[in-house]
Amino acid sequence: MNKKGILLVLSGPSGAGKGTVCQGLIKTSKSIHLSVSVTTRSPRPGEQHGKNYFFISEKEFIEMAEKDQLLEWAKVYDNYYGTPRQWVEEKLDKGEDVLLEIDIQGALQIKKKFPDSILVFIVPPSINELQARLIKRGTDKEDVIQKRLNCVEGELQEIPKYDYIVVNDKLEDAVNAVKSIITAEKCRPERFNLQKYLQTGGLS
Amino acid sequence: MNKKGILLVLSGPSGAGKGTVCQGLIKTSKSIHLSVSVTTRSPRPGEQHGKNYFFISEKEFIEMAEKDQLLEWAKVYDNYYGTPRQWVEEKLDKGEDVLLEIDIQGALQIKKKFPDSILVFIVPPSINELQARLIKRGTDKEDVIQKRLNCVEGELQEIPKYDYIVVNDKLEDAVNAVKSIITAEKCRPERFNLQKYLQTGGLS
Repeated sequence: MNKKGILLVLSGPSGAGKGTVCQGLIKTSKSIHLSVSVTTRSPRPGEQHGKNYFFISEKEFIEMAEKDQLLEWAKVYDNYYGTPRQWVEEKLDKGEDVLLEIDIQGALQIKKKFPDSILVFIVPPSINELQARLIKRGTDKEDVIQKRLNCVEGELQEIPKYDYIVVNDKLEDAVNAVKSIITAEKCRPERFNLQKYLQTGGLS
Repeated sequence: MNKKGILLVLSGPSGAGKGTVCQGLIKTSKSIHLSVSVTTRSPRPGEQHGKNYFFISEKEFIEMAEKDQLLEWAKVYDNYYGTPRQWVEEKLDKGEDVLLEIDIQGALQIKKKFPDSILVFIVPPSINELQARLIKRGTDKEDVIQKRLNCVEGELQEIPKYDYIVVNDKLEDAVNAVKSIITAEKCRPERFNLQKYLQTGGLS
């Protein structure tokens, strides 16, 4: 059995509900750890430093990127986002699963560096529903919402580069679909050690 | 959305518990249909014609094979087994999922004809456990059991050709793993119709 953990990357259009799906996964599954990204954007109401993001300055961000301490990073809507490298690699090496909630550019960077990573694209049930969610969330001004919606069609073109696509209509169903993806990926033959199976007479 | 159903093929060493896993799936999942194979072997105690197998003569079997009415067929331990073609193709075309419980040779034939089919290899938790199960089942004589066990190592070498491997330790876990595989496969980007999604404003 390959003891390395699974690196699961969730991304998708802003407002598709990536964050809610991630929280649902973390709550109901003890075996997966959510990586906390660094960002230069301002916290939204209720967001906590060290829980939702590490909120850092642009100067600090650039320093981390220059020291190769970020697994991926991207500029999205005038703000920087990045994934701290060390924490993720340590968990994977210990055989623990890691969940990343990052933007599409970042997800594709991860896939290049970690071909074994599993990319999941979360989409809202429809574009109209996406717009409604962004307005309801109330964290973005009208022009930012329009900017996000304009990007969506282009973002959806990246779907073929993903391993899976999950429609986030009912949250519970979306969370269960992602859990099923993890379970299925653990059943990949590449993760099965035949030599060990034969030698030990079974799986230890 | 690709409306074609999923063709799920379960196989693995004799005694791994394929049949029990299949029954568990059928019982708890109404959306998948078990294909009933034709065979020339004698019914085991309790097996019913038309439910477990269609028990037919060697002459009838050869006739079906010659008329190309079998999707795959194989000779296993002196008996013939085959999958009737028409029934499977009709279900898949209607968008319904089909489950095949067939031997390894047959599974690999199916994969060649249907590259989209999903092959799942069921293994017992250990070879010792496999032997214990075959003895407990009481349907095979000692020499047949030995013949089966001798084949296992060779059969396990085919694992890399499979899409998934499921260790059948606790039946419930094995059934859930196969269900997760079906759910995950339904989330493949190839099955997502982007044009339709954009045109209809969502998924119908």
